[in-house]
Amino acid sequence: MHLENNVYLEGEDALIIIDRRKLPRSEAEVYCTDHVEVARAIEQMMVQGAGDIALTAGYGLYLAAREMERQDDGLDMAVLKQAADRLCATRPTGFHLAVLMGKLLERVRKHAGGKASEIILAVLNKSLARQREISQATGRQAETLLASGDTVLTHCFAGAGLLYMFKYAKENGKQIKAICTETRPYLQGARLTAWSLSEMGIDTTLITDNMAAYCMSKGMIQKVFTAADRIAMDGAVANKVGTLQLAICARHLDIPFYILGYGGPDRRTLRGNDIPIEERDPREVIEFQGTPITGERVKAYYPAFDITPPELITGIVTVSGVHKPLKIASA
Amino acid sequence: MHLENNVYLEGEDALIIIDRRKLPRSEAEVYCTDHVEVARAIEQMMVQGAGDIALTAGYGLYLAAREMERQDDGLDMAVLKQAADRLCATRPTGFHLAVLMGKLLERVRKHAGGKASEIILAVLNKSLARQREISQATGRQAETLLASGDTVLTHCFAGAGLLYMFKYAKENGKQIKAICTETRPYLQGARLTAWSLSEMGIDTTLITDNMAAYCMSKGMIQKVFTAADRIAMDGAVANKVGTLQLAICARHLDIPFYILGYGGPDRRTLRGNDIPIEERDPREVIEFQGTPITGERVKAYYPAFDITPPELITGIVTVSGVHKPLKIASA
Repeated sequence: MHLENNVYLEGEDALIIIDRRKLPRSEAEVYCTDHVEVARAIEQMMVQGAGDIALTAGYGLYLAAREMERQDDGLDMAVLKQAADRLCATRPTGFHLAVLMGKLLERVRKHAGGKASEIILAVLNKSLARQREISQATGRQAETLLASGDTVLTHCFAGAGLLYMFKYAKENGKQIKAICTETRPYLQGARLTAWSLSEMGIDTTLITDNMAAYCMSKGMIQKVFTAADRIAMDGAVANKVGTLQLAICARHLDIPFYILGYGGPDRRTLRGNDIPIEERDPREVIEFQGTPITGERVKAYYPAFDITPPELITGIVTVSGVHKPLKIASA
Repeated sequence: MHLENNVYLEGEDALIIIDRRKLPRSEAEVYCTDHVEVARAIEQMMVQGAGDIALTAGYGLYLAAREMERQDDGLDMAVLKQAADRLCATRPTGFHLAVLMGKLLERVRKHAGGKASEIILAVLNKSLARQREISQATGRQAETLLASGDTVLTHCFAGAGLLYMFKYAKENGKQIKAICTETRPYLQGARLTAWSLSEMGIDTTLITDNMAAYCMSKGMIQKVFTAADRIAMDGAVANKVGTLQLAICARHLDIPFYILGYGGPDRRTLRGNDIPIEERDPREVIEFQGTPITGERVKAYYPAFDITPPELITGIVTVSGVHKPLKIASA
């Protein structure tokens, strides 16, 4: 399946990242040989999606451990912790990153005698396998919500679970079409979602972000599915900016709005308003792929995520089923 | 004032259009020497906004009349009517185009003895002056709705009335900021509105189309203003696609949503649903300034306008005042 894994080790001391910003036009490979390069790659959005960001950062921590091991000075937990902090600081909104970093440090501490890089790698391999299982289970749960003839609107790239949802629906003989918002400024909807669905043989139509309500008002959309970068215990969801306005419009036009929630909420985040919203470089809005699109005196603003309150969400789909947002804490 | 007039005659037999698709990066001038070239320029969106499209088409009809007059065969009303039909077929959603073409043909018919090109030009010169008066009067009415400290969200380019609104507010000592959606796929909000407001010294911030609800939810926006390509007698408004979702979000988040309605409704269009929505070449969505942004199997859809129902509109601002949408028929 496209986009399920875009990060892999080359030998023992280098990480290769397929630069998602350049897909589908080119499959550019970026080599990272230490954790700082990995952190920069994450900041520059070469990887995308809360789960993939976490895994990539995990490989960054692995490279930091390898570096210490090569120097034969033995493991310095303080240095490893610094590397983890650097990697955690890359993207504040998703919660998988901090959770995985915490888990990796914890495991290394517990097995003080073992080789840190091997301990980290074992956890990452397990996480990778587990992430695929979660995507498949979430896709299977989401598929039960679809009726043959539905057209699904989706925003940004909602992860492999979205692709599995379409795959299973097809296997079950359901005719499901996709409409994808392009998702400015990084165009993940156009470059990742529309591309991968169309390559799977799904009837896929691209629209700009401002056409969603029109399509809804014309009866062209039966269901909306997006992912979540973080789900709070109150059922609020942080996801790619634009999710909130899709949810408002879906509610106004009486269209079910679902979140692919994968593993469920972040138990340490009680309320949606507690989720930090990453603000990125305004230049990414002022420019389109490097070309300025307006005058020099214009400022720009780039919040990368928004918060959708639970009352606008029909259901949150996780591995264990479809949950009412207000009950996600007990899911 | 920027963008008040981008079309003018050079001598008696050529029309110069400043290509709005290239602003603000270059002020490319396009020469048209017959009405077919003018029609193509309109179709290709070198001019923008219902009023400007109508005036440009008027100059196209003038060129058609000049062509006949140069050939000394005398005026053939059937040929002039054909030229008017070609020009009318360029863009179906705005209503000013058909109204002006009808008026120009009517005037030529009435003054059967006169020189058609001169009759047409006299009407156009009057329309141009009248259009400026309407923009100023509308801007003056709209300005009364603003309170110092307001930030106004606007979409696409809402015409010179919007610029006058900001100008008058500034003259009256009101501190008003602007947030502009970029307005994909043609980026009129970034290229025309944000540019011209910032050049007027207004504090102007650009966002992508999917950030509007987030900004509203954060209390960053006090009022929304857009234009109308056509107002129906039931108070529904056709405007650049994306207007509907701004209106839905504004209502949900309790923010006043105003339409700059200039001259008011189209008396021949009873209901919003009667307004034809222009669908443009999907390639304009699949590509960004000529570069494909997704895979080859992806389709695209490009409705250029949408319809906002009267119940989502706080007020329609015309030369005569601010009207409740449901009462616009008697305005």
